[in-house]
Amino acid sequence: MLREATIEPRQEILRTAARLFQQQGYDATSMNDVAAALKLSKGGLYHHFQSKDEILFDIMSHAMDITEERVINVVRRIDGAEERLRTLIRLHIQVVLSPEDREITVMLHENHPLPPALRRKINGRKKDYLVFVENLIADVQRKRNSPSSVTPRAAAFALAGMINWIYQWYKPDGPLTGEAIVRQYTDIFFRGALG
Amino acid sequence: MLREATIEPRQEILRTAARLFQQQGYDATSMNDVAAALKLSKGGLYHHFQSKDEILFDIMSHAMDITEERVINVVRRIDGAEERLRTLIRLHIQVVLSPEDREITVMLHENHPLPPALRRKINGRKKDYLVFVENLIADVQRKRNSPSSVTPRAAAFALAGMINWIYQWYKPDGPLTGEAIVRQYTDIFFRGALG
Repeated sequence: MLREATIEPRQEILRTAARLFQQQGYDATSMNDVAAALKLSKGGLYHHFQSKDEILFDIMSHAMDITEERVINVVRRIDGAEERLRTLIRLHIQVVLSPEDREITVMLHENHPLPPALRRKINGRKKDYLVFVENLIADVQRKRNSPSSVTPRAAAFALAGMINWIYQWYKPDGPLTGEAIVRQYTDIFFRGALG
Repeated sequence: MLREATIEPRQEILRTAARLFQQQGYDATSMNDVAAALKLSKGGLYHHFQSKDEILFDIMSHAMDITEERVINVVRRIDGAEERLRTLIRLHIQVVLSPEDREITVMLHENHPLPPALRRKINGRKKDYLVFVENLIADVQRKRNSPSSVTPRAAAFALAGMINWIYQWYKPDGPLTGEAIVRQYTDIFFRGALG
């Protein structure tokens, strides 16, 4: 029992559930399926999560935690708006490509029927991230003092789209490596949106 | 009966089903729900579609038809690689923003459990579109004769991401109009990816 607790069973449940949701659909996956895939009893699963909604919400919250810890918190400690933005692009792409987190982060982007109150919480955190990116872009545009035809808001949406879309096409053994994506996306964005 | 046939019942079924799938989830929506929302008998619905898989596949196929008719077929008739690419960006954004087609086109991007053979057909058509965009980008880069740090492949993925992601944040009554998105996204992409 103690040993079970030390391997962070909640995170393991979230990861397994996220994989099942993607493979067979959220609605088609039952709490029984999740328990069986984890070799847990149904009671063991309900000890950690009361409902499938709670699992889905926790997956999405965990995806936002990952983004905040590995992107925003790192970027905040960097000096210089331009270097901050470069780092944000690199780290955000790394989160999207991370093999161990992809199952979790993909769930953020699909339209799953969360109860409205929970959906609002997730959307609020997504919006906070966007505002952070938007402000950073505005800082860089100000520093460069370049009159730009592109507003920070539109630029932030474009950047989020480029990066969050990667999961739709990326193949780990494909010709475009993570490093090549970081370099080329940074080039496109800096030249294109920052004048 | 004749009159029913003239309002293209199949398309109306697809649009209503797409809306239900997005509102309540694909798996949670039954053929009964679709029939009820259309005020059809279950037999009337099965007259048009054998199964929910068939409806989902037809929604996705219809979304690809829309993209081919309103983007690719128009672009092919235009002279000059650069003008072609500008037009493609504008028309693709218009398809994504189109109020009457949004319910249909959004379905393309979500991870729904289609049978593998049908999934492969849709993915093949998505890939054809990407290759068309990639070749067009390569044409423009050649014409401009500018050594670019960005490959046509990476640029095509970036562009598809920027545009296809719009459905995640766009609000018809929000501050960013369709026209403003077209102008700014075109600026970002042309400056950023075409050197």
